Amino acid sequence: MSTLKEMGEHEVVRRLTARLGAHAELMTGAGDDCAVVRLADSPIDQVYTTDPLVEGVHFKAGEKSERVGNKAAGRVLSDLAAMGAHPRWLLVNVVAPADQQFEDLENIYKGMNALCARFGAVIIGGDVARGPVLELHLFGIGELPAGTALLRSGARPGDEIFVSGPLGCSIEGRHLDFTPRVEEGIFLRESGMVHALIDVSDGVATDLRHILKQSATGALLDADLIPCNGTLENALYDGEDFELLGTVAPDASEMLRLKYAERFGSELTVIGRMTGEAGVLKLRDGKGVRTLEAKAFEHFKNVPEP
Amino acid sequence: MSTLKEMGEHEVVRRLTARLGAHAELMTGAGDDCAVVRLADSPIDQVYTTDPLVEGVHFKAGEKSERVGNKAAGRVLSDLAAMGAHPRWLLVNVVAPADQQFEDLENIYKGMNALCARFGAVIIGGDVARGPVLELHLFGIGELPAGTALLRSGARPGDEIFVSGPLGCSIEGRHLDFTPRVEEGIFLRESGMVHALIDVSDGVATDLRHILKQSATGALLDADLIPCNGTLENALYDGEDFELLGTVAPDASEMLRLKYAERFGSELTVIGRMTGEAGVLKLRDGKGVRTLEAKAFEHFKNVPEP
Repeated sequence: MSTLKEMGEHEVVRRLTARLGAHAELMTGAGDDCAVVRLADSPIDQVYTTDPLVEGVHFKAGEKSERVGNKAAGRVLSDLAAMGAHPRWLLVNVVAPADQQFEDLENIYKGMNALCARFGAVIIGGDVARGPVLELHLFGIGELPAGTALLRSGARPGDEIFVSGPLGCSIEGRHLDFTPRVEEGIFLRESGMVHALIDVSDGVATDLRHILKQSATGALLDADLIPCNGTLENALYDGEDFELLGTVAPDASEMLRLKYAERFGSELTVIGRMTGEAGVLKLRDGKGVRTLEAKAFEHFKNVPEP
Repeated sequence: MSTLKEMGEHEVVRRLTARLGAHAELMTGAGDDCAVVRLADSPIDQVYTTDPLVEGVHFKAGEKSERVGNKAAGRVLSDLAAMGAHPRWLLVNVVAPADQQFEDLENIYKGMNALCARFGAVIIGGDVARGPVLELHLFGIGELPAGTALLRSGARPGDEIFVSGPLGCSIEGRHLDFTPRVEEGIFLRESGMVHALIDVSDGVATDLRHILKQSATGALLDADLIPCNGTLENALYDGEDFELLGTVAPDASEMLRLKYAERFGSELTVIGRMTGEAGVLKLRDGKGVRTLEAKAFEHFKNVPEP
C-alpha cells in the first residue's frame, strides 16, 4: 500500500494510464497532450483532453474570477494547440461549497467564454456539484485533418528544438493571464514541417523529457539560447508557461521560423537540438555540458505539511 | 450577491447555462442529458456529457472502491443511454488528497474499466490533481446516426409515459451497483417509436419535469402503475435509479413494449400519459388527482449545517 504522496504524481499517472484500454480507432491515448481518435467515414480526427483547476493548488482563494476562468479555459485550449487542433467544444464541471458566491462563478464563466470566443470554441455543457473547495474540470474537444496531429513521438535525432516565447516566472501572473498558442499550433501543423509538439506546462526540462520518452531520442539544450523570464533555473523548471515547444528538421528550420515570424510578428527561438542518446537530456552552458536530472513539480510530493 | 446555497443547484445550473454559446453544428446544448453535435461530412452525431462524483456527496468515505468506480462510469454511461447513443470514449479527472491510498484508486479504475468493457467503451485519458477529498470527474463521448438522438423535447400530448424498472430506495445500494441501461437506450432509439427519453437521476417527479419543460407539455402519473421500491414517495423523489423514462405514441406503445420484453426479458411499464397542460405534473391516486409540486434533491440547499 502506498499513498499518492509517496508515489508522486507522475508515477500515479503512469500506473493508472498503463491500465487504460486500446482500440483500433484510438490513434494516440494517454501520454500525449490529447487523446487522438479517428472518426469512421470522416476526413477528420478528433482530439480530447481534460484539465482540473483546484483552488489552493492551481489558483489562490480570492483570486479575481475572470483570471481563474481564463486559466481554466486556457489550459485546455493550450493542450489542443499542442496537437495543432482547431478547438471546438468545451464542457465544464464546477465543484463549489454551499457558501460560494454565485457572482464569482458567473465571472469565471465570463473569463472562460471570453477566451473561448477568441478561438471559435464554445462551452456547451457540464455539471455542478457541492464540494469543499472551488474547482473547475474542463473537457475539451478539438479537430484536425485525419493523420495530421502533432505528437510527442515524432521528434528525430538532429532536429532543432524551438520554443514560442520566453519561459519561467509565470507564477508572477502570466499563469492566469496567458493566451494559449492556438493559432500558432494550427500554423505549425499546417506548415507540414514540425515533427513533434508539446505545450510547456511543467517546465521545458520536464516537458522536453516527454518528447524524449515518446520519441526515444535525447536532447542537448543550449543555456545561452533559452529565452528566460528570470533565471535559467526558472526557465527550465517553473512550468505553466503555456508556450509551444517543438522540433523541426534542421534543413527546414530557417524556413519555418521565417514564415512564423511573418505570420505572427514574433519569433520561434531555437534552444537546442535532438540527439540519438535515448532519454538523455543535456544542457550546454559556460562551464561545459552536463546532464539534467528529472525534477518536476509534483502535485502530491511538494505539499507543505499541515 | 447570492450564495449557491441561497439559490439552489437547479437555479445555479439554469443561470450558468443560459450564458452558454450557440453554434450551427450544436444540435442540442445544455438542458438535455448530453449535448448533441453534428459532425461535418459524416453520417454520425456525437453526444457529450460530464458527471462529477464527490466523496461525502455522491458516495461515503470508505466505500468499496470498485463500487465507486462502477457508479462513476455508470452515471456517464446512463447519460449516453438516455440519448440512445453508443458509448465510445471516456476521460477521467481524479482529485485526491496526498494521503490517498493508490491501491484504492487502482480499484476505482478496475470498477470503471469493468463497466466500460461491458459496453465497448474505453477510458482513453484524463488527469490527476491534489485536492481535499476524493473526486472523479468523468467525460463521456457517444455516437449515433445523425438526427436520431432521443431528446427531452420530443414528447407530445397523449403519449404514454414508460419507465424501464422499479424506482426508489437506490440509496440502499443500487445507486453504486446499478447497470446503466445502455443497450436498452440504443434499442429504444432504433425502434423509431420513442418520442422523448431521459434517465432517472433525480427522481421521476423531477426528471419528468425536464421532459415537460423541454417539450412544453404536461403529464398525469398514475400512482397505482408506478413500480416502487419502498413507498410512492421514494419512487417519486429519491433519485439515482438510473432507469430510463420515456414517452411513446399510444398507438405504438403495445408494439414497443412487446418488442422490448422479447429482447430484454423485462418490462417497460406504462406509468401515465403526457397532457397538453404545459408544465403541469399531476398524480392520480386513490384519493383523486392532485398537482405535484417540484421537490428535487438540491446539492447546495439540502446540506446539513456544520
